[in-house]
Amino acid sequence: MPRTERLCLVWLLIAGLLQSAKAQQHPSILLTRQNIENVRNGVARYPLLQQSWKELKKDADKAIKATIDVPMPHDAGGGVTHEQHKKNYQNILACGVAWQITNDDRYARYVKELLMQYAAVYNTWPRHPRRKDAPGGKMFWQNLNDCVWQVYVIQGYDCIYDYLNADERKKIEDNLFEPIVKELSEVNGDIFNRIHNHGTWSVAAVGMTGYVCGRKEWVDMALHGSKKDDKSGFLAQLNRLFSPDGYYTEGPYYQRYAILPFILFAKTIHQYQPELGIYNYRSGLLKKAVNTALQCTYTNKVFFPVNDAMKDKTYESEELVYAVDIAYSDMQSADDLLDIAQQQKRVIVSDAGVKVAKAIAEGKTKPFAYQPVWISDGADGNEGGLGILRWGSNDDQACVVMKAASQGMGHGHFDRLNILYYDNNTEVFSDYGAVRFLNIETKNGGNYTRENTTWGKQTIAHNTIAVDKQSQYRANEKAGDRSAPRLVYFNATSQYQVVCAEEDHAFEGVQLVRTAILFKPQGAAMPLLIDVFKAKSAAPHQYDLPFWYQGHLTDSNFPITASKTQLLPAGGNYGYQHLWVNGETKMNTANGVITFINNKRFYSTTFLADTNTSVSFVTCGANDPDFNLRNEKAYIITTKAAAGHTFINITEPHGKTNPVAEYTVGFKPQTKDIKLVSDDADNTAFTFTYNKVTYKVNLQYNNKLSFITIK
Amino acid sequence: MPRTERLCLVWLLIAGLLQSAKAQQHPSILLTRQNIENVRNGVARYPLLQQSWKELKKDADKAIKATIDVPMPHDAGGGVTHEQHKKNYQNILACGVAWQITNDDRYARYVKELLMQYAAVYNTWPRHPRRKDAPGGKMFWQNLNDCVWQVYVIQGYDCIYDYLNADERKKIEDNLFEPIVKELSEVNGDIFNRIHNHGTWSVAAVGMTGYVCGRKEWVDMALHGSKKDDKSGFLAQLNRLFSPDGYYTEGPYYQRYAILPFILFAKTIHQYQPELGIYNYRSGLLKKAVNTALQCTYTNKVFFPVNDAMKDKTYESEELVYAVDIAYSDMQSADDLLDIAQQQKRVIVSDAGVKVAKAIAEGKTKPFAYQPVWISDGADGNEGGLGILRWGSNDDQACVVMKAASQGMGHGHFDRLNILYYDNNTEVFSDYGAVRFLNIETKNGGNYTRENTTWGKQTIAHNTIAVDKQSQYRANEKAGDRSAPRLVYFNATSQYQVVCAEEDHAFEGVQLVRTAILFKPQGAAMPLLIDVFKAKSAAPHQYDLPFWYQGHLTDSNFPITASKTQLLPAGGNYGYQHLWVNGETKMNTANGVITFINNKRFYSTTFLADTNTSVSFVTCGANDPDFNLRNEKAYIITTKAAAGHTFINITEPHGKTNPVAEYTVGFKPQTKDIKLVSDDADNTAFTFTYNKVTYKVNLQYNNKLSFITIK
Repeated sequence: MPRTERLCLVWLLIAGLLQSAKAQQHPSILLTRQNIENVRNGVARYPLLQQSWKELKKDADKAIKATIDVPMPHDAGGGVTHEQHKKNYQNILACGVAWQITNDDRYARYVKELLMQYAAVYNTWPRHPRRKDAPGGKMFWQNLNDCVWQVYVIQGYDCIYDYLNADERKKIEDNLFEPIVKELSEVNGDIFNRIHNHGTWSVAAVGMTGYVCGRKEWVDMALHGSKKDDKSGFLAQLNRLFSPDGYYTEGPYYQRYAILPFILFAKTIHQYQPELGIYNYRSGLLKKAVNTALQCTYTNKVFFPVNDAMKDKTYESEELVYAVDIAYSDMQSADDLLDIAQQQKRVIVSDAGVKVAKAIAEGKTKPFAYQPVWISDGADGNEGGLGILRWGSNDDQACVVMKAASQGMGHGHFDRLNILYYDNNTEVFSDYGAVRFLNIETKNGGNYTRENTTWGKQTIAHNTIAVDKQSQYRANEKAGDRSAPRLVYFNATSQYQVVCAEEDHAFEGVQLVRTAILFKPQGAAMPLLIDVFKAKSAAPHQYDLPFWYQGHLTDSNFPITASKTQLLPAGGNYGYQHLWVNGETKMNTANGVITFINNKRFYSTTFLADTNTSVSFVTCGANDPDFNLRNEKAYIITTKAAAGHTFINITEPHGKTNPVAEYTVGFKPQTKDIKLVSDDADNTAFTFTYNKVTYKVNLQYNNKLSFITIK
Repeated sequence: MPRTERLCLVWLLIAGLLQSAKAQQHPSILLTRQNIENVRNGVARYPLLQQSWKELKKDADKAIKATIDVPMPHDAGGGVTHEQHKKNYQNILACGVAWQITNDDRYARYVKELLMQYAAVYNTWPRHPRRKDAPGGKMFWQNLNDCVWQVYVIQGYDCIYDYLNADERKKIEDNLFEPIVKELSEVNGDIFNRIHNHGTWSVAAVGMTGYVCGRKEWVDMALHGSKKDDKSGFLAQLNRLFSPDGYYTEGPYYQRYAILPFILFAKTIHQYQPELGIYNYRSGLLKKAVNTALQCTYTNKVFFPVNDAMKDKTYESEELVYAVDIAYSDMQSADDLLDIAQQQKRVIVSDAGVKVAKAIAEGKTKPFAYQPVWISDGADGNEGGLGILRWGSNDDQACVVMKAASQGMGHGHFDRLNILYYDNNTEVFSDYGAVRFLNIETKNGGNYTRENTTWGKQTIAHNTIAVDKQSQYRANEKAGDRSAPRLVYFNATSQYQVVCAEEDHAFEGVQLVRTAILFKPQGAAMPLLIDVFKAKSAAPHQYDLPFWYQGHLTDSNFPITASKTQLLPAGGNYGYQHLWVNGETKMNTANGVITFINNKRFYSTTFLADTNTSVSFVTCGANDPDFNLRNEKAYIITTKAAAGHTFINITEPHGKTNPVAEYTVGFKPQTKDIKLVSDDADNTAFTFTYNKVTYKVNLQYNNKLSFITIK
């Protein structure tokens, strides 16, 4: 831990010991007693808040009409009791807020009765029968869900605190919250003390409960870990799970998920102990984390699906609504955050939501400022990171992501130097994401399916080199944990944007260096993706470089003969067992060209080839007895028996087809004649022509890439 | 031809002979001299017209700035010269209209110069080098495109007629239009005289040119055929291509395409010879045809893709903009057409467009009235048809289409009694449509690929029974032409909607009767699709009933073991050669259940099974060397060695999953226990339970289905 961080921790510890009795009024987290009139006025005045309040009230009204149902826990994720307990915590919060806004006692009474019901039965429940981990959850199959339940419920309780009398509070706190805190911090103490998003949900639940119930002991444990030694707990998590750039080591999908307990607990700390300056911790880390989460999305609102990620997750998700509202209201984020809030189409009915909705109503919104950026990974920022190149407006933006981050713990994939390519509001070269049907109980209980390990995590499932038909680190997470890729160079000029990164340990005896460039030649409407991927090795290997493309093949400059009457898998392990081989062609031209159409635009990959080069076309789906896989498609450029090898390929977006007006233009690419000029350990130089102009690209692989000329 | 039609024709012939000299002022088709001030005012007042005018003017302004380019014809569809000549006709019309609206002579001059250029070179061109048919086109590869060119150009010419002096007109008419008319009506006279949409484009081009240029001879030919005997020509086409319900025999995709020349030529006739009463012809056929075209779309705006259809074609296409505007302004169509116009986001800058835009601005729009309807096919309405069931609002509508229409000429598929099922704004059971990459020259010149014949048209590519692994009529178009399916029953009550149709000749010795019912049990949020498909035969056969589903399998009540290490085709011909067999299961339960998820909603098909029943899961894509096929998926319910057989299956939409808010409800269906009660030639009765209530369905296959009870 750097020295400044340590100082900061000491300071926080002292501040913690001096803990004031401030803010023992209710509510005091997202809604506050002193600001409640302002929120009540706001719901009548600002359209976005008004709409959000309407929806919340609809849920609350539905809740108070329904019979209270606190079933004995029984089902796994997606099952009936699982969904009922989820609905209950949502209703508790909705009705708590509704009581604050309307003063209508029916809402508060509902929350009271429901909590009383829980308090009556919670201690009679055994461990969850379908528990997923050991010792496992109690209300839900995972302890994680129990934590989430408490994070929401404690906010609802805070809202109706003043409605309850002392006896009622005592009953709820003694018979429900105290056992839950024990369940989280002791029974599942390992999770509570983990440096992991599950740990954050756990400490947030315990810490927020501690603040609301005035239990200093719980707050201290939550902030500083069970042993109060700051080897675990919230501050340790802030120190170790985020890079200085606010990147969460498990990747964007989990950053989205984890950000909610971080933001909510931070907000609670800020409310009760503003003197701790939690928002300023690690130079305003949480504000950076919110911005970084958003920078890790594309213009279609979806998070970059690196590592175990569900691909339909957007910044419209509730976690980001909280994060955006609080970042804007509490952390001086800029007005471009309002663009995101508008796209989210809702705000939290809260002090923060009023500020956001008011600013939007006043016309302050600016387009969200997506930027080319290197986002470092690792607590000290020296464990690789994500390189993001962006070109064009938010309406039609080219975006390239190079994943050169660290392993990312148990949800990490073996996908170093993978690139994702987006354009025209859609994926072009995609990442499969996780193999999981979230909350669909008939699909392995809604959990990851076995193919997540055998396919989703494997190297060949990604747009990066697999050596000798194996995965990076032979798919061994611990081996992957030991080292991270290294940033060689990142730059974004008006002429080009470039990221270059290196990975030395993924395959024994092979050094990998990849350079991705966005470059718009004169006269081009859209930038080219220039991709130079160098494998250095003394011994001969097979190198497979797949491009998992979205769209439909329309052309190639070489014959492709798809297998007509039989499909066989490409191999037996490392994900190759899941590839059906549709066809393979040995190249006999200096450049190969493959064209496909996607969202009415054409894309051509022109690549350097020689007589050792072959191209295969594959479809995902072999060895998938339960139909868990999507049948996605790739072309794989392969060179066999080579010692070192440098792949050079240029993907050009071009033309368009309009099926309604029935016209097509530009179905042929302008990129031609990639020629290698020189290629050694320190340098790769090549030329290509675009629209009859020749460009020379000169890459220097010094410790810092010293220059690139394109002329 | 029925007697009234013959009388009508005689009357039209007489009227034609008396042809008046009316309307010899210009422009006189979509824009008219007497109404032009009204249009000029309208573009400033009515938002939709204003927007449409802006877009048109942008095109016109771009045109007059560009160099005039009239290249020697060279390329096939989608190629450079093809697209240039297309752009030229669009520019001629845009600039013609722009001159009328603005009086800015630059637009008229551009049209004049471009037409003069064409007049200078047209007669020097040989036949098109890439001609597709014999004798083939001249400006384009197909004569069809030449016709389309002229239909647009003559309107632009009409607009700038008064700008030209007599010499200029003579030059253009003598050197361009007269040769074109000759090219269309003589060189390609076979097409001109065909009862087919290509013929309609041809007669429209010649007839409209005749009216505008005052050449009665051309008008007469166009109306009554080359021989003026009404065995061909526009009136014969109106008589023979449409059913009394306004259904165009080639199907909705081609109805969309064909409607433009019908509507435009009719409008021209109406302008020049209102006394012919063309809009009233065949009891207002054209108005019905527009409504029928729209009834043949789903709420996602897409036309039902039966027969050779591109699946991305919506009612936003230009043809329907013309049709909707003219139907609303000239044919007293109701205000629900304005909904379509609003969705189209444009109107034609024309007399009709003003009326539509004005009515929308006045708030007259009503939701488009989709209705359950039987649409007859055949000139006399007795050659089967389309049965369309609809349930729910335009926001979330269940829709079932049973295709029981006639062969539909060369673009027809062997898909009788096929059903398409839509729900929740998306396809659920889909039709593959055509195998074609429209306008993408690298894909067989943009034309249908060979798989259109070997796959797209075959029976197994559709959701209807294939007998003994063959296609209906052994995929012989002429055999299919000889007979049509028969409507047994259609009814839409508040309790249920039903269509029942019969096909007796598709497979020798097998009679097929299918009944599709939409029925909403008590307490259900959405209706069930109940499907009873009876094959009557004395001899044993194999019956395969596929369901081409969109979505991802999530559950089944029987083990599915997908082939893990090898895929093989399902057969050698009739489309089976294009099926990869993923797995097959012999059933040993009385009901099978298959569940999939599509657009966040679950669908389960529960089907009657016995020990002769097996289910296979297949993916389209075998024997596809050029990657022309989409890899769609089906489950096929098969019964082997049975004489007659009755398939009973119930598809239930249920539950939902919300990946952003992360919850799932109702992933299990409520439909259970389908039990056959009785089944003979005249009757099928069965029971099933939904949410613990038992329903009995009793189908009587009399000549008219006498009753259905569901209790």
